Amino acid sequence: MEVRTLIERKRNGGRLSAGEWRVLMNQYAAGEVPDYQMAALAMAIFFVGLDRDEIGQLTNAMLESGARLHLDHLAVGRVDKHSTGGVGDKVSLVLAPLVAACGVAVPMMSGRGLGHTGGTLDKLEAIPGFRTGISIQEAEALLVRHQCAMLGQTSEIAPADRKLYALRDATATVESIPLIAASIMSKKLAEGLTGLVLDVKRGSGAFLPELDRGLELAKTMIALGADHGCPVVALLTAMDRPLGRACGNAVEVEEAIMALRGTGPADLMAVTYALGADMLVLGGAARDRDDARTRMEEAIASGRAARLFQAIIEAQGGNPAVVDDPGLLPQAPARALYRAPRSGTIAQVEPRAVGRGITALGGGRTRVEDTVHPAVGFVITARPGDIVREGDPLATILAQDQNGLDAGRAALDLAIRLADDVDDADPPLPLISHRVTGAGVECWDDGR
Amino acid sequence: MEVRTLIERKRNGGRLSAGEWRVLMNQYAAGEVPDYQMAALAMAIFFVGLDRDEIGQLTNAMLESGARLHLDHLAVGRVDKHSTGGVGDKVSLVLAPLVAACGVAVPMMSGRGLGHTGGTLDKLEAIPGFRTGISIQEAEALLVRHQCAMLGQTSEIAPADRKLYALRDATATVESIPLIAASIMSKKLAEGLTGLVLDVKRGSGAFLPELDRGLELAKTMIALGADHGCPVVALLTAMDRPLGRACGNAVEVEEAIMALRGTGPADLMAVTYALGADMLVLGGAARDRDDARTRMEEAIASGRAARLFQAIIEAQGGNPAVVDDPGLLPQAPARALYRAPRSGTIAQVEPRAVGRGITALGGGRTRVEDTVHPAVGFVITARPGDIVREGDPLATILAQDQNGLDAGRAALDLAIRLADDVDDADPPLPLISHRVTGAGVECWDDGR
Repeated sequence: MEVRTLIERKRNGGRLSAGEWRVLMNQYAAGEVPDYQMAALAMAIFFVGLDRDEIGQLTNAMLESGARLHLDHLAVGRVDKHSTGGVGDKVSLVLAPLVAACGVAVPMMSGRGLGHTGGTLDKLEAIPGFRTGISIQEAEALLVRHQCAMLGQTSEIAPADRKLYALRDATATVESIPLIAASIMSKKLAEGLTGLVLDVKRGSGAFLPELDRGLELAKTMIALGADHGCPVVALLTAMDRPLGRACGNAVEVEEAIMALRGTGPADLMAVTYALGADMLVLGGAARDRDDARTRMEEAIASGRAARLFQAIIEAQGGNPAVVDDPGLLPQAPARALYRAPRSGTIAQVEPRAVGRGITALGGGRTRVEDTVHPAVGFVITARPGDIVREGDPLATILAQDQNGLDAGRAALDLAIRLADDVDDADPPLPLISHRVTGAGVECWDDGR
Repeated sequence: MEVRTLIERKRNGGRLSAGEWRVLMNQYAAGEVPDYQMAALAMAIFFVGLDRDEIGQLTNAMLESGARLHLDHLAVGRVDKHSTGGVGDKVSLVLAPLVAACGVAVPMMSGRGLGHTGGTLDKLEAIPGFRTGISIQEAEALLVRHQCAMLGQTSEIAPADRKLYALRDATATVESIPLIAASIMSKKLAEGLTGLVLDVKRGSGAFLPELDRGLELAKTMIALGADHGCPVVALLTAMDRPLGRACGNAVEVEEAIMALRGTGPADLMAVTYALGADMLVLGGAARDRDDARTRMEEAIASGRAARLFQAIIEAQGGNPAVVDDPGLLPQAPARALYRAPRSGTIAQVEPRAVGRGITALGGGRTRVEDTVHPAVGFVITARPGDIVREGDPLATILAQDQNGLDAGRAALDLAIRLADDVDDADPPLPLISHRVTGAGVECWDDGR
């Protein structure tokens, strides 16, 4: 197969066949197709797209390049959640034990942070001892025992996707809906799921800020799931501000623990319950979304959800005592309050600027190989619309040292925009705006 | 410098600065920017282009990545010719000694064949012993002694371009006018020219078949030359059929020798004289194009041009006796006539099919590392518009063996299209259709 002719055909708006995708991705995973040809193809796809059949064929080709979790013997449904990524998005940490505590198996496969967004694996690794690099066999055993496992994409799962994802990151070809959809679904389908829930972020801090692009991604992934008998439900949620108050690794684990203990911030709880409701329904553990909500509230109130998180942490090598005493998580050596530089209304808390601030503090990555300082970050208590007076505390900066505090302050100067009047600011996006299923797009009704 | 952000900016329709191009191409030549990032950038450029300033900045960046010929001490003008490539295009072999014999120095830097087109270096190397891999110093010495040197792009000249060109070939990013123009001009400007003549091919066998794309390329290169005080003149010539009769390496050298000895085919001579006239005028060796034509005819009639070719061959290690006895060139072991399969009118001799036929015979390349058999090819005597009867000889096939003859016959079955009536065929393109200079585009008047 002449890869150059495949690139040329795609470049000219043509399509590749199922067989060509399969051979191409297998040869790429095996190192027989060089990165430079795949990079050119990815950029051509960025410009001309893939048709519906090609997206499915590419997904299958990447899925079939690796191994799968075998969970058919579990008596319960298996449902995972995927988020397109944001700042302060610690929902997975809450949702996985919460949903598992309600009787659905959750093989939670996550990634690392990159660019302005955090990653669940980095957050979990802020827990002393926690191992995310578990094998498929270990994950299967954890799912039998605890109905939950929290793992990274192992080298066994969709290796072609793993390689392509790293390449896309280095070649500015991430923001392509066909490539995003195929990448996510090739991994998720390898988990042997009976259902999948998507959190598609929109707004300035999202990879795809525009609503129509988010909806397109949701519909594409729903169709891909349908191809494999895996129902997919997507919620569109706000990422024009961070989710919750904590932004960083250890500090987000702490907020997730508080959420599991019943004292999480309202926006985090609302998104968690909304996603969890669909997970429980898809997993067959609740009659409907209302029933699901009741069960989740009970799992938190009874302490079962927090205890399951504790059990998972222990099973994956982490210190389970952090659930009772989050003070055992890594603590930043330097802390300072960030105060309102003047009086006014909080017009925006811009997530990209916050995310870049975390990276500037050493808590994020600009390259895959960067290591992260788990304790740094921000706790931002100011919310869009708040009326503040000069000197009011808006956030806490958690840093390695004085230089970090300065960098954090500079980041918040950019991130937290003050207006003289609330009318000067764009209204914040609704926290949850749409729910998308195979049946179509519904506008979200907060009263549901 | 974060290369990813440069790719992203270009992908989004932005521009790179002169400094960014310079650092990027220097780092690429040094191996510090990986091929996969450059491949993604090249594909982004394919789609969104480069603006006029960027083309110049990229050209300069590639030019400055390497060394230059120093020819300022020569008393005469230095003019080279570049062709965008075709089938049967042996013009360089005739033009370099012919123009040099008329008093203009010709540092003829050429490439190898790839895809359906032949390359001057491969043709020269069909001459037993001929060395094209000469250094800049050796080329400078040859230019002092013989006013002519025939060389390849050494590793010293525009190394960033050399690397990028090979990458573009493997990644289907060749057909981008900004990249083509920058590539050609970065090499040609390294020759220290006082003028440059371009042969821009159009028609089905050309890299850019459409007239408007050819004109755009010509204008772009004229502007780039003007930036460096190097006047450029372009002729648009026909590549909807092969040029001359011989298509192959050794056989084209033979035809070039016949041309220098005054017995070349009419179309080859017309293109050679047309390009040579501008070279002599740009090089200051003729008052005008008519004067130039007279001088070239005299150089051929007197034998000076052929003797100069002989001297160059000898100086570059080749057997000079081939000029007097082309039978000393490599001879194909198997030969056969190709006869008209039926009576009719020659509607077309399609150059791409002929070029692919040469490759099928072993005389071309599909990969840079392929070796070529110098003796194989075709001598095609049939011309579009000829009325032929079944069984008339249309061509001679030159092959390695019987299998080659079969492959050659199959290629000519595709290449030579017979129609019942001449009106069934598209009329051939005018051999020379336009002349483009800094002053604008002129339609070519055959009577000039």
